[in-house]
Amino acid sequence: MLNVSSYAQGAWVAPDSGARAIPSAITGEIIATAGNSTLDVAGMHGYAREVGGRNLRELTFHDRARMLKALALYLSEHKQALYDLSYQTGATQSDHAFDIDGGIGTMFVFASKGRREMPDAHIYLDGELEQLGRTGSFMGQHICVPMQGVGIHINAYNFPVWGMLEKFAPTFLAGVPSIVKPATASCYVTHLCVKLMLESGILPDGALQLISGGVGDLLLHTDAQDVVSFTGSAQTALMLRSTPHLLENSVKFVAEQDSLNASVLGADAATGTAEFDLFIKEVHREMTTKAGQKCTAIRRIMAPQASVEAVIDALSARLAKTVIGDPRDPATRMGALVSRSQCDDVLEKAKILGTEAERVFGDPNNFDVHGADREKGAFLPPMLFHCADPDGAQRLHDTEAFGPVSTIMPYRDADHAIELLNRGKGSLVASVITRDGALARKMVMGAAAWHGRLYFNNSDSMAESTGHGAPMPHMVHGGPGRAGGGEELGGIRGVMHYMQRTAIQGSPDILTAIGDQWVPGAAEYTGGPHPFTRTYHQLRLGETLYTKPRTVTLQDIETFAHFTGDTFYGHMDEDAAKANPFFPGRVAHGYLLLSFAAGLFVHPDPGPVLANTGLGNLAFMKPVSPDEEIKVRLTVKKKTPRTAQYGQVRWHVTVTNQDDDLVAEYELLTMNAYEAGESTA
Amino acid sequence: MLNVSSYAQGAWVAPDSGARAIPSAITGEIIATAGNSTLDVAGMHGYAREVGGRNLRELTFHDRARMLKALALYLSEHKQALYDLSYQTGATQSDHAFDIDGGIGTMFVFASKGRREMPDAHIYLDGELEQLGRTGSFMGQHICVPMQGVGIHINAYNFPVWGMLEKFAPTFLAGVPSIVKPATASCYVTHLCVKLMLESGILPDGALQLISGGVGDLLLHTDAQDVVSFTGSAQTALMLRSTPHLLENSVKFVAEQDSLNASVLGADAATGTAEFDLFIKEVHREMTTKAGQKCTAIRRIMAPQASVEAVIDALSARLAKTVIGDPRDPATRMGALVSRSQCDDVLEKAKILGTEAERVFGDPNNFDVHGADREKGAFLPPMLFHCADPDGAQRLHDTEAFGPVSTIMPYRDADHAIELLNRGKGSLVASVITRDGALARKMVMGAAAWHGRLYFNNSDSMAESTGHGAPMPHMVHGGPGRAGGGEELGGIRGVMHYMQRTAIQGSPDILTAIGDQWVPGAAEYTGGPHPFTRTYHQLRLGETLYTKPRTVTLQDIETFAHFTGDTFYGHMDEDAAKANPFFPGRVAHGYLLLSFAAGLFVHPDPGPVLANTGLGNLAFMKPVSPDEEIKVRLTVKKKTPRTAQYGQVRWHVTVTNQDDDLVAEYELLTMNAYEAGESTA
Repeated sequence: MLNVSSYAQGAWVAPDSGARAIPSAITGEIIATAGNSTLDVAGMHGYAREVGGRNLRELTFHDRARMLKALALYLSEHKQALYDLSYQTGATQSDHAFDIDGGIGTMFVFASKGRREMPDAHIYLDGELEQLGRTGSFMGQHICVPMQGVGIHINAYNFPVWGMLEKFAPTFLAGVPSIVKPATASCYVTHLCVKLMLESGILPDGALQLISGGVGDLLLHTDAQDVVSFTGSAQTALMLRSTPHLLENSVKFVAEQDSLNASVLGADAATGTAEFDLFIKEVHREMTTKAGQKCTAIRRIMAPQASVEAVIDALSARLAKTVIGDPRDPATRMGALVSRSQCDDVLEKAKILGTEAERVFGDPNNFDVHGADREKGAFLPPMLFHCADPDGAQRLHDTEAFGPVSTIMPYRDADHAIELLNRGKGSLVASVITRDGALARKMVMGAAAWHGRLYFNNSDSMAESTGHGAPMPHMVHGGPGRAGGGEELGGIRGVMHYMQRTAIQGSPDILTAIGDQWVPGAAEYTGGPHPFTRTYHQLRLGETLYTKPRTVTLQDIETFAHFTGDTFYGHMDEDAAKANPFFPGRVAHGYLLLSFAAGLFVHPDPGPVLANTGLGNLAFMKPVSPDEEIKVRLTVKKKTPRTAQYGQVRWHVTVTNQDDDLVAEYELLTMNAYEAGESTA
Repeated sequence: MLNVSSYAQGAWVAPDSGARAIPSAITGEIIATAGNSTLDVAGMHGYAREVGGRNLRELTFHDRARMLKALALYLSEHKQALYDLSYQTGATQSDHAFDIDGGIGTMFVFASKGRREMPDAHIYLDGELEQLGRTGSFMGQHICVPMQGVGIHINAYNFPVWGMLEKFAPTFLAGVPSIVKPATASCYVTHLCVKLMLESGILPDGALQLISGGVGDLLLHTDAQDVVSFTGSAQTALMLRSTPHLLENSVKFVAEQDSLNASVLGADAATGTAEFDLFIKEVHREMTTKAGQKCTAIRRIMAPQASVEAVIDALSARLAKTVIGDPRDPATRMGALVSRSQCDDVLEKAKILGTEAERVFGDPNNFDVHGADREKGAFLPPMLFHCADPDGAQRLHDTEAFGPVSTIMPYRDADHAIELLNRGKGSLVASVITRDGALARKMVMGAAAWHGRLYFNNSDSMAESTGHGAPMPHMVHGGPGRAGGGEELGGIRGVMHYMQRTAIQGSPDILTAIGDQWVPGAAEYTGGPHPFTRTYHQLRLGETLYTKPRTVTLQDIETFAHFTGDTFYGHMDEDAAKANPFFPGRVAHGYLLLSFAAGLFVHPDPGPVLANTGLGNLAFMKPVSPDEEIKVRLTVKKKTPRTAQYGQVRWHVTVTNQDDDLVAEYELLTMNAYEAGESTA
């Protein structure tokens, strides 16, 4: 018997007499107990805020990203223990790939994106500077800072590991502590994962707490700095989001609800095509993975009228070969549902579907279970329904049997398919199997507003496609209406849910001081050694080089044209150039200006600048005619560490002419050694 | 007497016997009547969806942006009529600058941003491509499409024009129809503005409807495709957001509520500094503009203990000179509140403040009103309170007198100021008057999470600063907690509230078909005429040129170095280059590669390509050693119209070596004539 403790204010709190018993999905025997009626949830909330929040906000985004990576590595090393325990939830080894490996993979992606797409700083800059006055002495910049509260994560039973980690990773990266409350039915797996994470010693105090059992009155302690993120049923979501305290205090509530996800077989994907086979494979996988207990699983299958029979036949044949049984047996293709009460719920919903559709595959009273007791474990067969008149049906479009159950229905044309898709009133994902780009675009225009994700697949993409049902950490997960109206993941977007976006207005110097990024118009530091002789650590924001001027001659233009082969008439032919709306006559090549600019600012000797690795946002503002002058201003704009030896310096560069008119503006990227001498290390 | 009609389903509906009488703020006389008890709000909702939504979604973002600009120009031409009527709400001519000119200016900004920052297309691409597999045959892209419902805008009385337009402009740009419900007290001004907009003939049918009077059961007809955007009091917001129908259907609800905004005088801004005077000016303006009826007005004034008396003196002196009276009189500096009942509400709240603070300026029973009857109009004097112990106070931090009322309080140090700021439990804006960048950063780290906007000002920025209280269309407006937890404006961010973000996954060809942007890996069209000889309209996405290769010799590197002056050791010194972690030995200059690449792909003769205007996202991936080869692939990625004659073409460029390794990758921008021969037009 597992005593599933909570982890509160730095200590484990064992279940007490009020705890709930948890059965094995395979045998029905009680294997664990969880819940403590005296758990101090208000204390947990205060501890998260006071200890966890403060600890996390002292770190930079990169610090936290590195910790996420270390945690992911630690969990990878210990994942066998998670596999071993997780079978008890009814999950097979291939289900573990979604839950356990998927959860760890999500942490790796956030670790990587945190390093690559966020600054090594405490404040995230959102979008570009906004010039709010004529000369730029008053500017705007949006920033994001960690919310000063707690991420309260209320998770579903079906993904005890992924469900926790997909919320924890972005919350942690944002700099916000988490209190995790997994569904009781599988909380023993989450508990083990939390235990491993704490044992790793990587997490700062207060960053992660766990409630095994009920949440008590936790939500009544929240305010506008907290985020309540919920995954589960629409009923529970509604109950939670209606809590007056949350509404009165504008507490952010994010819901991701099970929805009536659908998959459409394109009209081009007739039997015999690779796409037809792909469709059968995708639908089969969604029906049977996790015994259909996935919020993204396909509940409605839509096929052109002419293909319905073929789909039923092919899908039935594949379902018939699906071995149901003890998930620990490698031969098993579909394990158990989480509990017998979940089976009862599915059968009840299937009965409702049966009023509008005919069951064409699967008999819950007659199916084989291998290596386990069908009467004791939470087993069900996959069940396929067929509805010939989806227009006349209603319950098909609003009833979800959260198990291995799906309904196939015919559609007439793309508009009809869109109409049926949207009758689900909001879903997490809809998929379309097609090679037809025009059809794909039509589906997007008609259906994207109702679906959080649209998944297209065909023979071009199937080798690398990630599956209809798999939320990728890079892409948003959530959807409108029945799907809850929330959004999670989506790379850095998912981190932003735990940060406050604030508009900052001020002078260039003030914005530079706030944002760790030099703003044009802010103080420049000139007159010191050439900045290319200064190490990454020596360089300060605003450090600036003004070069001497250089005259661009007609001979330079001729030389450059013949040397490079770029004999564009704008550079070579006075009359033709004059006829061009952009040029006053022959002008210098843009690349000649860039090259001369480099000639003016580069310091030739070995030093901390290791390489010019790129260039961004180059705009040519004014052409340069023969015998005009150019000169360069080069300013340190931003610094970002990259490796243990060197970091990236982003320089703001302006090229001006003899009248100080702007000729070109761009950002130059270099890699700079942290310390002198590292270039030759 | 103005009969204020509603505009429903393409027709004006006059008030009926159930209408409400509206008094003049100046005289108290009834000047208008509004409301119709039989208004078919369900019909309006259906009409907006079926007619308005369909009409708007046929247009591109640029089409709608152009219409916004035309509307803004039309309103500018007719704004005198709005001024004339608006005086009746108590607003002065300078108040009109915020409401009427501010509203029109907001439309101009959205028109401009729509053209510059959104595509001339039906789908908006959000963020970058995400590669989801190893080779790039399956990719992800987030898109935004117009929601298929209605923007329901419930506005406050204080800004009858700006309040409507700041919600309408982003909604319209998104492609979503609006139903506007202004507060009844000033709805006659909104009515005139809507009338002008409709008379302009610019709006598609169904794009804008108006409810003058009550909304009936409109909210009960909503679903997840609708957005309810509310501005006003916290009580009304709570009542609306608690509507079970909205909660049950995950209807998006955005609230912008009055909040306890504060302004902090920096410790560096002592008397005698330009910043001290600026602080007095800003606070005075926020107390008196619109007679203090602004959701962003300063309710709490925080000054270092040592400066409190000086602030009270300076502010009182300035307030004493503020002429209160008929807003039509140019000498008037502060007009009336909207109604006598609003005055009563302010006095009631002032009484509450009086329990914790002493009134040090302004006596509601003894003040002068010029040119109007103090007893009949809705006049109040500005009132300044002083609280010596803000730590012990509570009502100061939770009670808003929505009129010309503010409370000054002392703070000890920056941490104390942050604590006091955050005791407001969420605001739309807090300001800090300081020159001290370190203080600014500290305030951001401590307070940004509680405030939608932080406004810094000092003598560097004051000439162009836009004012503590003015929400700029470029910057987000809204805030956490007491401010409602919503967000509006913020440039294109404000448009996104009316769009659904959807994750799209598929092959490069499918993503290209959906997104109007070529995705690497999608079909390339080669073998036709040189793409530089093709007009903007002739070029298709994916049209590609492969160039012949060119060998880069050591002589080329030497020539380039001496010609440009770029004699960086990595190009010139074999031993030093070898010691660099990025180079195998001497390598070609990045700018040499760019220049040679142009030489390979440029077509020299006059043609539709008018100019290379810029370059983006250049990354140098692999150095090129002497005697290695480079060659270029140039592909049409995206097309954006810019003027009546030409548009921007964004080319995806890769430079590869003799082994097909990627040497450099970038995006090239050119301006291309729509038609042949336009280059010489």
